[in-house]
Parts: sequence; C-alpha cells; structure tokens
Amino acid sequence: MSWSTPPGFVLGIDFGGTKIALATVATDDGRIIDSALLETDAARGAPQAVERALAAARRLLDRGAAAVGAECAAVGAVSPGVVLPDRIVLAPNVPGWEQLALESLLRDGLGVPRAVVGTDVKAAGLAEALWGSLRGSDPALFLNLGTGLAAAFVADGRVLAGAHGAAGELGYNARDRAAAGPPTLEEVAGGRSIGERGGALAGRPMSAAEAFASELPPVRALVEETLDELFTHLANAIVLLDPARVALGGGLLRSEARILPPLAARLAEVVPFPPELVRARFSDDGALLGAVALALGAVGVELASVPLPAGERAA
Amino acid sequence: MSWSTPPGFVLGIDFGGTKIALATVATDDGRIIDSALLETDAARGAPQAVERALAAARRLLDRGAAAVGAECAAVGAVSPGVVLPDRIVLAPNVPGWEQLALESLLRDGLGVPRAVVGTDVKAAGLAEALWGSLRGSDPALFLNLGTGLAAAFVADGRVLAGAHGAAGELGYNARDRAAAGPPTLEEVAGGRSIGERGGALAGRPMSAAEAFASELPPVRALVEETLDELFTHLANAIVLLDPARVALGGGLLRSEARILPPLAARLAEVVPFPPELVRARFSDDGALLGAVALALGAVGVELASVPLPAGERAA
Repeated sequence: MSWSTPPGFVLGIDFGGTKIALATVATDDGRIIDSALLETDAARGAPQAVERALAAARRLLDRGAAAVGAECAAVGAVSPGVVLPDRIVLAPNVPGWEQLALESLLRDGLGVPRAVVGTDVKAAGLAEALWGSLRGSDPALFLNLGTGLAAAFVADGRVLAGAHGAAGELGYNARDRAAAGPPTLEEVAGGRSIGERGGALAGRPMSAAEAFASELPPVRALVEETLDELFTHLANAIVLLDPARVALGGGLLRSEARILPPLAARLAEVVPFPPELVRARFSDDGALLGAVALALGAVGVELASVPLPAGERAA
Repeated sequence: MSWSTPPGFVLGIDFGGTKIALATVATDDGRIIDSALLETDAARGAPQAVERALAAARRLLDRGAAAVGAECAAVGAVSPGVVLPDRIVLAPNVPGWEQLALESLLRDGLGVPRAVVGTDVKAAGLAEALWGSLRGSDPALFLNLGTGLAAAFVADGRVLAGAHGAAGELGYNARDRAAAGPPTLEEVAGGRSIGERGGALAGRPMSAAEAFASELPPVRALVEETLDELFTHLANAIVLLDPARVALGGGLLRSEARILPPLAARLAEVVPFPPELVRARFSDDGALLGAVALALGAVGVELASVPLPAGERAA
C-alpha cells in the first residue's frame, strides 16, 4: 500500500432521491469499516430523511471509533443539486430538499470537525476518475443519465465545479426553440419524463425502462426522437470539452443497448475527435464512494494514491 | 515591475485567414521591440503565406537580437484549427492550411531553439485571461464569433486544450436534427454563412455586418433565427461550464447590439447562474498577444506576473 495517514476514519453519505447510503472508511488502509442503506421516503419530506440519516451516521461513528480507536476525522456528503451553506439549489427532483442547510446540519448533528458537501454526480465522476472507468483518462467526462441529467468533467484529476458549483448541470440545457414541448432538456429526456410521456401514450404508467422496451409504435417513436435529441446535446458537450473518454451511468443505462451504440454513431457523425465511450464502473455506489473521497481529501489524503475502498457493504 | 528573466526576447506570430501578424517582445520588461503585419493572400495558397511570414520573422529576429543583445529564445505561433506536428486540422476556412507542418517549418526556417504552436482562439482567450476582459475571473469563457465559431475555456489560469487540442471548437456543434439546412452550427451561424445566406435573400453579395444591418424582412428574419439558434448553443456551453464571466470577440461583435443584449436575455431564461457578459478587450490582436504568451511560457516566464506587452505595433 503506497499511502499512509494516521489511523482514523471518515464518513461518506449519499443523499439520493430514493435511498440514503452511508459508509465509514479507515484512513490508513481504505477498508470499509461499516455501512448502512436507508429509504429516503422523499414524499414524507426532507427533514425526516436527514434526521434518520443522522441517527444512522451516529451509530456508524460510534462503531468506527471503537474499531479504529480514533474519532471520525471528516464527513463528506453529497446530494443532487448545488449544496450551498443555507440551501440546496437545482435539486427539483427531491421535494423539500432545497430548504436544507446540509453542511451545518451535518456538522452540528454529528460533532465532526470537518464536513464537506457536494453534488452527487460530481462525486460519482470523481469516483470513476479515481477508481473506475475513467482512471488513467484525462480530460474525461462522466455523464449521468437518470431521473436527472448531469455531467462531471474531470481535468487534471479534478472535477470542474464551475463558478457557482453548477458546472455540468446539463438537465438545464435549452432545447431548440422550434422544438415542441417544454424548454429544457431534462423535461423531455430525463428518466422521469420519458416514463411519464411513454405512459401517457400507452395509457398505463411506465418507467423509462418500460418505455425503452415498449413495442408500441408511438412509444417507440417517442423514445427514438427523445434519445436523438439527447444525443445531440451530449455530442455538443463532447465537442466543447474534447475528452479522451466518456463514461455513462445512471438509470437510463439499464437500457444500455439503446444508449451506447446509437450515441457512438452520433458522435462519429459530429465530433472531430470522438472519445472512447464506456459504461461507468459504479452503478449505484459511485456517489457514495465520491463522498468518501471528498472526506478523505478534506483530511489531506492524497487521493491519487488511495486504493478503492473495499469491504462488505449494506445493500 | 514584479517579474524578471535574463535579457532576451521572443517572437509571436498569428497566422490568420486574411492577415499575418508578428511581434517581438523583450523578456525582461515585456516591451514590444518590433512588429509586422502582412496580407495572408489565402487564395494564393498556404506555402507562399508561410514563406513571406518567415522572411518577415527573420527581419524581426535580426532587429530583436541587435536591440536586446541576445538571440530569440522562443517563437509562439497560432492559427485557426488544431496544429499537429505534420498538419493542421479543423481549419476549413483557410484553403491549403491543413497540409502545413507548421512547427517544423518555424523551427527549421527560423533557427529558434523553441517553437510552440497553438490555436488562435485559445491564444486569444489566454490573452484575455492574462491581460484583458477575463483577468481576475476564473473559470471564464472566451467566445470568438467570426468566420469561424470557437471558444476558449480558462480554468485555474489555463486554457483547456482537450485530449486532442480540439476543446472549444463549437463550430462543429450539431444542430437539432429537425432544423432545416446544414448539420453543423458554423455552417449556419458562422460569419461567412450569415453573409452568404443574407446575400442570397437580398440578391446581392453581403457581409455578416451588412446582413445584421439589413432592413429587408427576409434578411431580418434570417438573422434573428440564426442568432437565436446560436444563442441557444452558447447558453448550453455556459450551462455546462458555469463560468464566472464570458467575453465575446470576433467579427460578429462589430454588431455588438445585435449580440450582447439578446444573448444576455437568453442566458437569463436558461442558465441557472448567468455569468457576466462582456466584450473582449482585444479586437484584432488577442491571438497575437496569446502567441507571445505561449512563447514566454515556453522559456519559463511566470505568465501571471507578466504585464501586457506594450509599445507601438504595425497596423
């Protein structure tokens, strides 16, 4: 093992729209000490979700301290949107989430000396760059195609934050004005919209995956048109950034055959130097691993030399 | 003056589609020693243009050596496109340009120990970041709207090159598939295309500036539609990068009132955190100043502490 820091541990938390994942990781060897997975139960509001997450975190901190013989050095927490000191912005898919002062809730609620907060997709991109599909490629782009659409651009080993923490939020991309329907990309090509619009055509509720699999001609046409528009936007992001490699993750990738080959074909038409296209390594836990990386970085660990946190995790 | 290097000088060359600009700059105080401006005469081919530029460069090198008492330490040269060792790619607007092995032509033709080559718009963006409209803003974006459309994204004081040197080449952006006409953005919204398409509607040859000023209803409609589409693409680049400030330059900015206010309005509709929008400081000489900066960087000068090269220049 080529890295070493004083014995201790950090906590990572990924606040997702449906699940909240937590893990404690030892700073001396990168092993996962403990982990937990909770339902977000978003419909019941954000405060109860944070409260239950804090209770689970306290149990993990107690057990971590007992296992390692030191207090938790830092917590890294990520969520959709841009996490500001007093609120979270650009997180429309999680009701009530925008009013949270997440950083102080964590610091006060856990009594941990350092709390770092960030955006889930940027954290997942960091995990791919450190330990996954983007390792060794720089500059590189992680694209998350799920309920929300967002990207993380990695250059010189770091994820581009942007001036306001909002780099990569391509769900907000403007659609061509001549296009029918809502004005932003996520409102047509986000996973929720694909499912809802497919379901409206089919006359029954549908997920995006069901819409992708549907044999109904109007649903097939909707999916094809929507993906074609999405691929044009992704191609233009790739023209602008000229990454060496692009990794794709998120719920839409469950229908990988509907995404990767036609996107590659679109890039070959348009992009001067088409990058490698790969599927992301981490399907559900990239953001949690990225949250752990944020916490490790906050205590001065040299991330490039840290091995992938390993060990059993709650599922 | 807060910087100092051994006495010496560097040469910058900007190979443009209509003009070639050269300047020698002293490394100890940043003064412009000498400069020259030639017609590219692109229709007569690239080799004759390079040959005349080399002849002018040799005169500048002789006078620089006499003035400073040292040989030229480095040459920085920029052109449209991506300058590779054996050819230049993505430079469709300069006939014959793509076959040039510019770096070796410069090194062999000038006998200078270091030659650095780059893309003109990236160099202009670097000049804006060091000495112009983007100074003190990071991350920041320079947009060149001229015959070609391209961007330079500055983060941590450096211009993003991309994996193949092609970052920012947004003239290649794919248009919405449903849109009538050619497939890429530059083919409709580059300055040449706007002039040509306006001229076809008006029944007489037109520049882009004339199309912008035209009162003919079909030309007005063409310009409005074209700019609207361009602004959507620029807005999406800004969503992706989240810059603190955006500077615009290039020929289309001669019609500034048709660009800046409506672009600002489009950004306000779409971009979560709209950046400051400003006009670039350097209108014609940003790329030349950037070429000088590349040469200074190649001899180890700390660019952040270099003052704007100053002195009389050929015009």
